[in-house]
Amino acid sequence: MQPCSLRRISLNQKTTERWNVQEAVEGCVRADVPWIALWREKVAEAGLQSSKRLVRDAGLQVSSLCRGGMFPAATAAERAARLDDNRRAVDEAAELWADVLVLVCGAAPDRDIGSARQWVKEGIAELAPYAKDRGITLGIEPLHPMYAAERSVVVTLAQALDLAEAYPADEVGVIVDVFHVWWDPDLEAQIARAGDRIKGFHVSDWIVPTPDLLMGRGMMGDGKIDIRGIRQLVETAGYGGPIEVEIFNQIIWYTPGDIVLAQMKQRYVEHV
Amino acid sequence: MQPCSLRRISLNQKTTERWNVQEAVEGCVRADVPWIALWREKVAEAGLQSSKRLVRDAGLQVSSLCRGGMFPAATAAERAARLDDNRRAVDEAAELWADVLVLVCGAAPDRDIGSARQWVKEGIAELAPYAKDRGITLGIEPLHPMYAAERSVVVTLAQALDLAEAYPADEVGVIVDVFHVWWDPDLEAQIARAGDRIKGFHVSDWIVPTPDLLMGRGMMGDGKIDIRGIRQLVETAGYGGPIEVEIFNQIIWYTPGDIVLAQMKQRYVEHV
Repeated sequence: MQPCSLRRISLNQKTTERWNVQEAVEGCVRADVPWIALWREKVAEAGLQSSKRLVRDAGLQVSSLCRGGMFPAATAAERAARLDDNRRAVDEAAELWADVLVLVCGAAPDRDIGSARQWVKEGIAELAPYAKDRGITLGIEPLHPMYAAERSVVVTLAQALDLAEAYPADEVGVIVDVFHVWWDPDLEAQIARAGDRIKGFHVSDWIVPTPDLLMGRGMMGDGKIDIRGIRQLVETAGYGGPIEVEIFNQIIWYTPGDIVLAQMKQRYVEHV
Repeated sequence: MQPCSLRRISLNQKTTERWNVQEAVEGCVRADVPWIALWREKVAEAGLQSSKRLVRDAGLQVSSLCRGGMFPAATAAERAARLDDNRRAVDEAAELWADVLVLVCGAAPDRDIGSARQWVKEGIAELAPYAKDRGITLGIEPLHPMYAAERSVVVTLAQALDLAEAYPADEVGVIVDVFHVWWDPDLEAQIARAGDRIKGFHVSDWIVPTPDLLMGRGMMGDGKIDIRGIRQLVETAGYGGPIEVEIFNQIIWYTPGDIVLAQMKQRYVEHV
C-alpha cells in the first residue's frame, strides 16, 4: 500500500502539549503541516477569536475540535450543565470552522455503567439538533476500554455506531483512533459498517511495555499497531479526510515541538 | 440479591503473591477458605507431588491451575515448544485434581494480531483432545484489551466463546473475570450465551485512578465494577462453582496474607 499523502496530516494539539495555539499554528506552518486539531482548553487560553484568526491567517484547516461529551453525572443539574458546555463547544467548533466536534462521552459517576450509557444516548439526542443547526458534525470517539471507568463508557466502534445510526451520517459519525480500537476482534467488520460515518482518523502507537494508562501512547512505528492496515480499512470504507497524529506521552511532550513535528511527518510516511 | 456463600470462595494464589504453596494452603485452612487456585510457577517451586499432598491433606479443592496458553510465537519451533509446555500444564492440572486449566492465550510477537489469533485457534485445537483424555477442562480467559499487546489477543467473551464453541462444553469453556470484562457493552448477552461453558468466575475491582496496567487491580468494593450484578448474570447463566479472588496489586502483596484473606472474605460477603 502506498504511503499516505502529507496533504492529509493533522497535528492534534495534544501531541505538542506545551505549545499554545499560536506556537502550534506557527509550528505547523514551519513544518508544512496543513491541518490542526485544536483543544478547547488551549483555545480558551488563547481566546476564541484570536485562535480563529491565527489559524485562518496561517492558512491551516481545523480537522476537529476536542472535545465535547462527558455527558454522565450524578445529578440532573450537573448533566444539564454538561449539556450547556457541549452547546458552547459546538459554537466554538462552528466559529473555528472545524469539520467535527469530537465527543469523548464520559464515565459513570458510580458503578452503574448502564445508566451512564443511557445518559450518553440522551445527551447526544439533545446535542445533535443543536449541532446540526450550526453545521457541525458530531464525532463519537470510542475510547479504549481501559478508560471505561474514568473517561468513556463508549468503548467499541460497534457501540459508537449503534449511537450514531439514530441520525443521518452527516450529523453524527464516529472517530476511529487506532490506539483505542486496534485490539477489537470485530474491527474490520465495524469499520466497513461505519462507511461514510467515519469523521476522523487518529494515529499513534501502542508501545510495549506500556508505561502508563493515559500517558503511554507512542509515536507511529514504535509499537504494535498495524496502522497502515487500519488506514487501508478506513479508506476502503470511504474515508479520505485528515489524519490526526494524537500522542499523549510525557517524553514526547518534553521534546521540542519542531522535532516532534519532523519525526511525526517521517513516521507518517513510513507507517501510516 | 443475597450475599454469596463462603463455601464458594477461592484464593487465587496471585492475591498472596509472597506466599508459597504451603503458606497459601495453611492460610486458607486458618481462614476457612475451602478452595485454592494454584499457579504453575509456585507449584514448580514447591514440587508437584508436594503441592498435591499439601492441598489434599488440608482438604482444599483446586478451583483452577493458572495457566496454560501463550500459543503465539515467532517461529514454528517456539510454537511447538509452547504446546509441549501446555501439555505439561494439563498433566499438572490432572495431578492436582484441578477443575480447570486456565488459558491466557498470548500476544502477537509482531504487529500481526490476525495471525496470532489464528495460532491461538490452532493451539487450542492441538491441546483440547490431550486435555479431554486427561479429564481436564480448558478455560479460555479473555483478558482486558489493555493486555492485547503483551498477554492475550483474546480480549472479549464473544471471541472466547467463538473459540470454545468448536468443542463440547465440558471440554472447552470460558473464564469470566470481572476485571477483564466489566466494560463490555455486550457483556450481558455474552454471559447468557456462555451458559454452561462458564468454567470459572474471578473477582477483583477496577480502582480509580488506576495506578498501573498490570498491578492496578483492587479489592472488591474499592472500585467501579458492579461485581454483584455480574455475579447475578453468571449465576443466571447457570454457573454455581467456585469464585476466585485474584488481585494483582503491590500494596495487597505487601500486606500480610492473613489480613488479606480476612479482608477478602469480608468484601466477598459485602460485594460479591
